[in-house]
Amino acid sequence: MSSPGYLRKAVEALAAYVPGIQPEGDDWLKLNTNENPYPPSPRVLDAVRAAVNGRLALYPNPTAEPVRRAAAKAFGVEPEMVVVGNGGDEVIAMIARAFLDKGDRVVVGDPTYTLVEVLVALQGARLTRVPLRRRDFALPERFFGRPAKLVYLPNPNAPTGVLHPLDEIDRLCETTDGVVALDEAYVDFARATALQLVHKYSNLVVVRTLSKAYSLAGVRVGFGVAQPELIAGLMKVKDSYNVNALSQVAAVAALEERAYSAECVRRVVEQREFLIGALRRLGFSVVPSEANFIFARPPKKPARAFYDELVSRKVLVRFFDRARVSDGLRITVGSEKQNHEFLRAIKLTMITLGLDVPDTPFGVVKF
Amino acid sequence: MSSPGYLRKAVEALAAYVPGIQPEGDDWLKLNTNENPYPPSPRVLDAVRAAVNGRLALYPNPTAEPVRRAAAKAFGVEPEMVVVGNGGDEVIAMIARAFLDKGDRVVVGDPTYTLVEVLVALQGARLTRVPLRRRDFALPERFFGRPAKLVYLPNPNAPTGVLHPLDEIDRLCETTDGVVALDEAYVDFARATALQLVHKYSNLVVVRTLSKAYSLAGVRVGFGVAQPELIAGLMKVKDSYNVNALSQVAAVAALEERAYSAECVRRVVEQREFLIGALRRLGFSVVPSEANFIFARPPKKPARAFYDELVSRKVLVRFFDRARVSDGLRITVGSEKQNHEFLRAIKLTMITLGLDVPDTPFGVVKF
Repeated sequence: MSSPGYLRKAVEALAAYVPGIQPEGDDWLKLNTNENPYPPSPRVLDAVRAAVNGRLALYPNPTAEPVRRAAAKAFGVEPEMVVVGNGGDEVIAMIARAFLDKGDRVVVGDPTYTLVEVLVALQGARLTRVPLRRRDFALPERFFGRPAKLVYLPNPNAPTGVLHPLDEIDRLCETTDGVVALDEAYVDFARATALQLVHKYSNLVVVRTLSKAYSLAGVRVGFGVAQPELIAGLMKVKDSYNVNALSQVAAVAALEERAYSAECVRRVVEQREFLIGALRRLGFSVVPSEANFIFARPPKKPARAFYDELVSRKVLVRFFDRARVSDGLRITVGSEKQNHEFLRAIKLTMITLGLDVPDTPFGVVKF
Repeated sequence: MSSPGYLRKAVEALAAYVPGIQPEGDDWLKLNTNENPYPPSPRVLDAVRAAVNGRLALYPNPTAEPVRRAAAKAFGVEPEMVVVGNGGDEVIAMIARAFLDKGDRVVVGDPTYTLVEVLVALQGARLTRVPLRRRDFALPERFFGRPAKLVYLPNPNAPTGVLHPLDEIDRLCETTDGVVALDEAYVDFARATALQLVHKYSNLVVVRTLSKAYSLAGVRVGFGVAQPELIAGLMKVKDSYNVNALSQVAAVAALEERAYSAECVRRVVEQREFLIGALRRLGFSVVPSEANFIFARPPKKPARAFYDELVSRKVLVRFFDRARVSDGLRITVGSEKQNHEFLRAIKLTMITLGLDVPDTPFGVVKF
């Protein structure tokens, strides 16, 4: 399509962020966008259903005050330390809009969550990609103490699932002049959160979401948690009425019933460990993950060959055609049933690609 | 609150957009945020209820494709001429983000919808306010042919309700170098839309919404309609997954049943004309409105005095403490019952303020 001439140059030059495919139809095994395999709590669904009434003619609370209060309680902070977004993605966008002027320096790891590259480009800011360690994706020494207006780090990291330890996050906040945006979208599946560091560091914003652990990707609710001064700044750049009425109801109900989410998380973690073990026995190299997905490098054949073959079997995982990650697949941890189906598809794929399938104890492929 | 030092200067300096009050509790007569007094269609509510299920664990369609198709059909354009936003406000924000670089010139009328001032400031662009004609708020000659990267015009205008005629919109597109953003949030209540001009002008984006005529302010769905090249640019700056799953369902259902909305609009328009007549008989000066609100200048006493007195009676209208509009009140057209309650409150207010209440035929205040 030819350039319209009206767009900002930064926008013309931009390749938009490409989210994972959301196929229509239910016949896909969908392990490509890190959704929770379990449905939202029945109580959450009941609360939302009860709110589907004539009051939808009215604007929602513009700052999602009831959600702020519920989130503050859940996170052990004050409501003025929380901003609510239309998904965690909007919170990350708010961070870019609040802190980044043209020419400002942003530091990210490589690989990272690629949405941030789009947001940085939209602000006209400059991105420095610091390569993570090759095999284990740990933070290298030169990630710390760099001059930057903003450091963005998913933790657990994406698309690797690696959790950077708390003392490294502490050190990152300590040694960074600018703002540290710590994207804890997947932290509910990990051993530890760094959320409490917001009390210690005025330059830390922690991003959280209900999309993963709370099985609510469809309703779009995320949070920024930081000291009140930073939150007040983020509130200024937030779209008015950014969180719709039904999502506010869902969020409050979900945050008030965290035991349900905790049980879903427990099952996903159990399945994650099962899946990692099973893939390793098949010859995959799998980085230890603390998320609800794993990054797995397949044996002997290119990751893309595995990806294509899986798609032909209506199995969707994520393949990134980028340096440092094009040798692996990002696979969402599914339910027990989904994971067995996935492993069956992987074995068939290996056979199609002419690879030997080692004997494994997790179920037999029958022909 | 002291400056945190991390914010962009443009954000530090910014006074955030202040939306109208959304009081908690049902004992307010709420005529301050231009909502529809009638509930959404029962079919829309049924469709949303049916979608409150386990699939909320999945991400929504990232570009709201089913909504684009339904909107395209309703608007008589192709789907690639529609972008769907989290409310019309997000569409306006996308326009600012796609077209405005630092220092770019933006032309607006004065008064206008004040959200745009915040968005322009966030981009570091420069705002030129062209005063509308004093008494009737018409577009002055010098609104046309100005050099600008963007001209933003609500039509019907806000907060006045005045509809600028189609030939003036045509001329505006013709004589503007940059993009014309025509915000038709209220156009369903007017005689004519300029939507068909998108086929004629490659620099026109028309903004529409389901918040007003479709009684869906709570679900947050708006549209940008333009030629495919402009829409492709707006899609690039859109947040991923910006429209949640339930709002997508509501939007498709509402767009497929436009007869219901048309009937709500018919009633609101009838009530608007009743309200204008009644207020004029009480001595108010009311600009002819083609929206679901009216701008009324009260007799003899300051508009603020009326506003404060109405608030004390739990009646909310909108008062803007700004040049050119501080002599009036923006009053949302309510249901027949609400409008009679409002007129009763206005009469009591006039008495409290020491004004004579003329005899009027629309019902008697009893003491």
